[in-house]
Amino acid sequence: MAGSPQREGNVGNVAQVVVLVTGGCGYVGTHTVLRLLEQNAQVVVVDNLAGVIRGSDEKKPVSLERVEELAGKTVNFHNVDISDAEALDKIFKLYRFDCVIHLAALKSVGDSCSLPLDYYRNNVAGTITLLEVMKSHQVVKLVFSSSATVYGEPQYLPVDEQHVTGQRVTNPYGRTKYFIEEILRDLCTSDPKWSVICLRYFNPVGAHPSGRIGEDPAGVPCNLMPYVAQVAIGRLEKLAVYGNDYSTPDGTGVRDYIHIMDLAEGHWAATKKILKEKGAKAGEGVESSWLAYNLGLGRGYSVLDVVKCFESVSGRPIAVDFVKRREGDVASSYSDCSLAGSQLDWKASRTLTDMCRDMWNWQSINPNGYQSN
Amino acid sequence: MAGSPQREGNVGNVAQVVVLVTGGCGYVGTHTVLRLLEQNAQVVVVDNLAGVIRGSDEKKPVSLERVEELAGKTVNFHNVDISDAEALDKIFKLYRFDCVIHLAALKSVGDSCSLPLDYYRNNVAGTITLLEVMKSHQVVKLVFSSSATVYGEPQYLPVDEQHVTGQRVTNPYGRTKYFIEEILRDLCTSDPKWSVICLRYFNPVGAHPSGRIGEDPAGVPCNLMPYVAQVAIGRLEKLAVYGNDYSTPDGTGVRDYIHIMDLAEGHWAATKKILKEKGAKAGEGVESSWLAYNLGLGRGYSVLDVVKCFESVSGRPIAVDFVKRREGDVASSYSDCSLAGSQLDWKASRTLTDMCRDMWNWQSINPNGYQSN
Repeated sequence: MAGSPQREGNVGNVAQVVVLVTGGCGYVGTHTVLRLLEQNAQVVVVDNLAGVIRGSDEKKPVSLERVEELAGKTVNFHNVDISDAEALDKIFKLYRFDCVIHLAALKSVGDSCSLPLDYYRNNVAGTITLLEVMKSHQVVKLVFSSSATVYGEPQYLPVDEQHVTGQRVTNPYGRTKYFIEEILRDLCTSDPKWSVICLRYFNPVGAHPSGRIGEDPAGVPCNLMPYVAQVAIGRLEKLAVYGNDYSTPDGTGVRDYIHIMDLAEGHWAATKKILKEKGAKAGEGVESSWLAYNLGLGRGYSVLDVVKCFESVSGRPIAVDFVKRREGDVASSYSDCSLAGSQLDWKASRTLTDMCRDMWNWQSINPNGYQSN
Repeated sequence: MAGSPQREGNVGNVAQVVVLVTGGCGYVGTHTVLRLLEQNAQVVVVDNLAGVIRGSDEKKPVSLERVEELAGKTVNFHNVDISDAEALDKIFKLYRFDCVIHLAALKSVGDSCSLPLDYYRNNVAGTITLLEVMKSHQVVKLVFSSSATVYGEPQYLPVDEQHVTGQRVTNPYGRTKYFIEEILRDLCTSDPKWSVICLRYFNPVGAHPSGRIGEDPAGVPCNLMPYVAQVAIGRLEKLAVYGNDYSTPDGTGVRDYIHIMDLAEGHWAATKKILKEKGAKAGEGVESSWLAYNLGLGRGYSVLDVVKCFESVSGRPIAVDFVKRREGDVASSYSDCSLAGSQLDWKASRTLTDMCRDMWNWQSINPNGYQSN
């Protein structure tokens, strides 16, 4: 069962690698795991299955079964919480990981405001435990699922990686991401053997074009596009648009969206970069052992742009209700992703139409998400 | 053994209170516990005894035995790490705490740079565990040991509580304090039943005038005054002064120092304030459920001021060696403590001479700290 990191692979330009993906059963996780399998990586998933639908045999969740089916390959799955140091340690004894892609986290902005301790426990303390176990097994390469929320209210646009982080972050969820970035930075400063890439997602949307995997929010979606999709399918009545008096072309908030397939490719690009640095010591061709990259489309779309595009691809009307602005929301936010272009050789290629079409495809095939089957 | 928070006390202006002090065997802890005992509080101490000298019976540490002897009262002591949720839970079942004074933390700036994970584990994750246990027992009042390091490089002087925090904090130790402050703020925002006071210490120095308790640094001291004291006593050869070309009156760095006895009184003042708010709901006479106060003398002294004053009270020469500036050090930092004056009715009353005299008294009676006996 133990991985063989030195074995040569036949796809991609690195040897076959053994990758641990925490939170691999979630939305970003499934698409990322699929991408890794397509690149011939051996993938081990650790997930506590919070809010994840169980599969038919109660062992693997539906989402991961579908990833395996799409890839024609298997994934080593362990139902383990990253806060459980002992269980995690056992997994690190089973495999020789080349790197970890750390996606496990609670991710609802709203819940983080009402239950901040749960967010600090799961996200921050959980990450500290993961890092301690990694350290004790000399696994020192990590790709971390960060977020554009670390930038707080943008002080200029487009937002690049030089933008200040941690100031005016409006919710505990965003602070957990910021704190973890800083913990990772301190770790890399203390020991240059560590190599960490933080990926700052803008708004991931869309689904695999097959419609077999996609976002399956528990309860009422908090994010725009899943909400719009559920209005289109008839699970929700209408979309509340928070503010139409912003200084944007149509008055509604402008955001940067990224197709989940582009995001998954971003994780693979980061993984390749971090593995190329295998064995490199500080100063030996390594720019820095802690790096952060924006992953977005690099342009903004308004709420109404998204609604119109979704109506067009789905052929369904989306009822909207204009309500007052939400506290903490900004008029516009969009990314400069040129650093990922030059250093990761990555660029988002899928359009807003692609995002809406694949989201609609997933939603209409699976009107109740993974519970549909 | 269970505390009786409703019992009337005969000292002070609040009923006898039951207070948990985490880290109660350390430097700030011992002086604070003594002050609480003098005010007739029932004190329970939780400490993992990291770096603390054990007492003769191997149960209570020497420091706490001396506190009991000075107060003529006993302290309930538990050798427990705050990261141990199960052990902590048992203690919360034994007593009905009115509030917690949370001092347990790793505190070496230098070590935090080389071992950041240990600092995030003990300070941040440890605090999250403590808060979870408090929450599950409906203990929602906390006085937290924060630090002036949360201000980073001062943007103006004197530094008041409105100064930005978390920006340009130069070490992981300071970041742990900043992160905890933010976690506590989010907790208070999520649930106004919580009441938290963060005390931002400037540089605590000195000792109890009896010379029975004081600072007992493990290894070579990192802070100025204990270092000076050990040069005076002959344990160290000479003091390295990092930079004498700052734009300060004598070219050496200027800092705000606070006598540990004043600091202990600050903790009692904060405890009284937080207990007065007992049962108050949001909006009922409570300014906010999260408050932060500077505790300092409100003026700065240079390195050479401290050296001269120490030479004068000890009658011993202090050899100094001027070396280049240390990265991350600022020229000057001192506090505006008027908010603690108006809201806590607290003001530091002890002078630099008092600090040096009591430090020297402690050092000369206990040349090897608690190990001397």
